[in-house]
Amino acid sequence: MTDSSPTPDTDRIERITAALRENQFDALLCSISSHVLMLTGYWPIMGNTVALVTANGDRHLLLPGDEVELAGKLSVAHRTTFAPGTLDQITNSEKAIARPLAQLARSLGLDRARIGVASRGFLGPVSYLSQYHYGNALDEILRDAFPNIALLPADDLLKRLSAVKTAREIDCLRRSCGVARMAYQEGAAALRVGLHEPGAAELFRSAAANAFHDGRNARAEAYFFCMSGINSATAHAAYARTRERAIEPGDLAMIHCNSSVDGYWTDITRSYTFGEPDDRQVKMRTAILEARSAALARIAPGVPAHEVDAAARNVLAGYGYGENFKHGTGHGVCFAAANHDAIPRVHPKSTDVLETGMTFNVEPAIYIEGYGGMRHCDVVAVTSRGVEVLTDFQAASADLNLRG
Amino acid sequence: MTDSSPTPDTDRIERITAALRENQFDALLCSISSHVLMLTGYWPIMGNTVALVTANGDRHLLLPGDEVELAGKLSVAHRTTFAPGTLDQITNSEKAIARPLAQLARSLGLDRARIGVASRGFLGPVSYLSQYHYGNALDEILRDAFPNIALLPADDLLKRLSAVKTAREIDCLRRSCGVARMAYQEGAAALRVGLHEPGAAELFRSAAANAFHDGRNARAEAYFFCMSGINSATAHAAYARTRERAIEPGDLAMIHCNSSVDGYWTDITRSYTFGEPDDRQVKMRTAILEARSAALARIAPGVPAHEVDAAARNVLAGYGYGENFKHGTGHGVCFAAANHDAIPRVHPKSTDVLETGMTFNVEPAIYIEGYGGMRHCDVVAVTSRGVEVLTDFQAASADLNLRG
Repeated sequence: MTDSSPTPDTDRIERITAALRENQFDALLCSISSHVLMLTGYWPIMGNTVALVTANGDRHLLLPGDEVELAGKLSVAHRTTFAPGTLDQITNSEKAIARPLAQLARSLGLDRARIGVASRGFLGPVSYLSQYHYGNALDEILRDAFPNIALLPADDLLKRLSAVKTAREIDCLRRSCGVARMAYQEGAAALRVGLHEPGAAELFRSAAANAFHDGRNARAEAYFFCMSGINSATAHAAYARTRERAIEPGDLAMIHCNSSVDGYWTDITRSYTFGEPDDRQVKMRTAILEARSAALARIAPGVPAHEVDAAARNVLAGYGYGENFKHGTGHGVCFAAANHDAIPRVHPKSTDVLETGMTFNVEPAIYIEGYGGMRHCDVVAVTSRGVEVLTDFQAASADLNLRG
Repeated sequence: MTDSSPTPDTDRIERITAALRENQFDALLCSISSHVLMLTGYWPIMGNTVALVTANGDRHLLLPGDEVELAGKLSVAHRTTFAPGTLDQITNSEKAIARPLAQLARSLGLDRARIGVASRGFLGPVSYLSQYHYGNALDEILRDAFPNIALLPADDLLKRLSAVKTAREIDCLRRSCGVARMAYQEGAAALRVGLHEPGAAELFRSAAANAFHDGRNARAEAYFFCMSGINSATAHAAYARTRERAIEPGDLAMIHCNSSVDGYWTDITRSYTFGEPDDRQVKMRTAILEARSAALARIAPGVPAHEVDAAARNVLAGYGYGENFKHGTGHGVCFAAANHDAIPRVHPKSTDVLETGMTFNVEPAIYIEGYGGMRHCDVVAVTSRGVEVLTDFQAASADLNLRG
C-alpha cells in the first residue's frame, strides 16, 4: 500500500475534524471507495468496506475479512471485520455488516449522534470488476439499531474535502502519474500505422503492467483507449471508447489513459500523427499547446477556475477553434478519475476558486466533425507558487510526435 | 451491440410482464447496469442510464446523449436523452435526468403508479472505469414530482428475473465464453516459468483484446489474474489478485478470468503446473476433475442446487480435501460476474432449485495453506436435458497442462 507510513496523515485528519466541527457532525460514515480512500488511506477492492471517522479524528474501518491483509500496513488504528460469504450460511455484505456496524456505533457512543453520510448521485472510479453498493442498507441498519440517530447529508462536505489534497496524497498521485509516463514512453515507441485501435491501446496497457513492477505490491489498474481518425472527432464524450478502426497514414490518434496506483487516479491524453503532420495538424497542435500554456500560466491559489478555462478557450477561439472545444478545460482528478463535476470545475460557469493542493486535469482539445480530434490532457497540482504539472512529458518519440 | 436484432426478445419481455403482474407493479425502474441490460438488452457505459418497463411490456431507456448511438440498434422502442454535462451550465446526471424522468412518468400515466425499484445492497459488474450511482436521487425525483407514487422494493424480483436467461441471452453468454476460450488458448501457449504474475496475466489479456476483433464493434472487457505458488493458496477470497511473484518450476498457478462481451460476463479459472506434475499435483487434479464431473452430472432442471454442491464436495472430501474446498461450488453468472449471492447459489445451505436457462459457474477447488491452490471454474447453462458447459476447453497446451 502506498500510504503505509507508520504515522498517519495528520494534515488529512485535521481537515476532516475541522469539517466535522464546522457541520456539527459527530462522525462521518462512508462506503464509496474513493471516500474511504480519502478518509483512511485505504482503497477498498469490493466496495463493501465502510469508513467511520469520529469528531476526535479516530478512523475506523469495517472490512470484509478478505481485505484485512491489504489494509494491514495502514496507520488506521481501528479495524473490524465481517464475512460477506461463508460456507455456514447464505449471506451478503448488507446482512454481514449489520451487527459489527451497530456494535461499533454503540461502542463509540454514537447511539444518538449526528452522522454525515453520502446519499446523492455519485460518479466514482471503480476498484474491481465487480463493485458492491449498499444502497439504502447502511442507513437502515443504523436507523434500526439507533432510532435516535440523525443521518445528515454530507455529499457536499465530502466533495470539498476530496478537492484539496495533502502533501502525502499528492505524492501518491505523482507516483501514479509516473507509472503512466513510463507506459506512454514505451507504448508510443511501438505505435504505428496499421494497428487496430485495440492493439494500439494494448501496447500502452501492457507497458503499464510492466511499469507497475516495483516490488511494493501496489495495486494498480490502467485503462488505455485509442481513438483514431474520425473516431477521435467524437472523443469529447463522457467516456473514451476503443473501436476496431485501423490507424492509417495521415491520421490523428488519441491515446487516453485513466490509471491508478492504490486508488490515486490519473486522467491523461496524448495525441499522435502518423507521417509528417500536414498544415491543419500543425495548426491544431500549435493552438492546443498554446492554450495549454495559457491555462497553466493562469493557475495559482486564489484564481477563479473559470479564468483558467477562459485562458485556454480564448487561445483556441483565436485560432478559429472556439466551437471545436466542446468541454470544460478540466475538473478535479485524483480521488476521481473522470468526473467533470469534481472540484475544481475548470469550466466557463464554475464558481470554484483554486486552492493550494487542488489537483485537476488541463485538457485543451479540438474536435472537428467528420475529420478528427486532438487533445492534450495533463494532471496538475496547485502549489503555493503556481502549478506543478505531474504529467510533464511529451507525446511520443520524435517520429510520431507532432512537431511545430 | 449483441442484441441488435430488429425483433425484441419476446421471451424476456413476457417474463418481465408476468413478474409485474404477479407483484401488482405498474412498472419497474432500474439504473444498475446489469438490471438495465436484463430489462432492455442495453449495457450502459457510465451507469447513469435508467430503464423503465411498464406492465404492457413497453421498454423505455433514459440515456445520456453520449450513449444514444450505442443503444441505436436495439429493439427498444422508446428512448429519451439527457445531458449530464454541458458548456452552458455546471450540472450532473442527477440534475439532468430529473425533468425527462418526470415527463416520461407523466406521459405514461404513472403519477399514482406502483413502481418497483431496487434499493438494497447490490454487487454487480462494472461497465466503465468510473461508474455513476444515483443513490437516493431517483426515488426522490419521482416522489417530488408525484407525491402519490408508490416506490416498492423489487430487489428480489430483479434477482429472480436475472437468474433465468432466455435463449438469446444464453447465445450472448456463449459468445462471450468463446472469446475467453481463444484468450486461454493463446495465453497458455506463451505461459512459462520466470514470468511475473502481471506479465502472465497480461498474456491472456492481450490475447483477449485480439480475440475481440470481430468487426462488430462489440464492447468487450477482459480481466485476467494470475495467482502462482503460495499466492494461489488464498485464491478463495471474494476477489482475485495478481501480485509480483515470479512463476517457479514446480509451481501451481491459476489464471482467473472475468470477461464480458456487451455486458454478458464470464467467470473462468484454469490451473497450470510447470514441469512434470508431482504426486500431490496429480492427486489434486484428479480430485478436482472428478468433482467437476460429479457436479455436472447432477445438473438438471428441478434439482436442488445444494445437491450439486454436495456432489462436488463429497468427491473432494473423499480425497481428503474436504477442509480445503473453502467456498460454494458456484453461483449465478452472466448478468453477474462474481457474486456468490446470485441465483442459483450452488452452496451447502442453498434453497434454490435449478431451472432451465439458469447459468452459473462450477468451481471445484483445493486450497492448501502454505503451499498453493488449484481450481477449475466453468460456466454452464441448465438445459431441458441437463447441462451445457459453455467453457468446455482444457487448461492449456500439453506441455503445461496437468496430465492425470
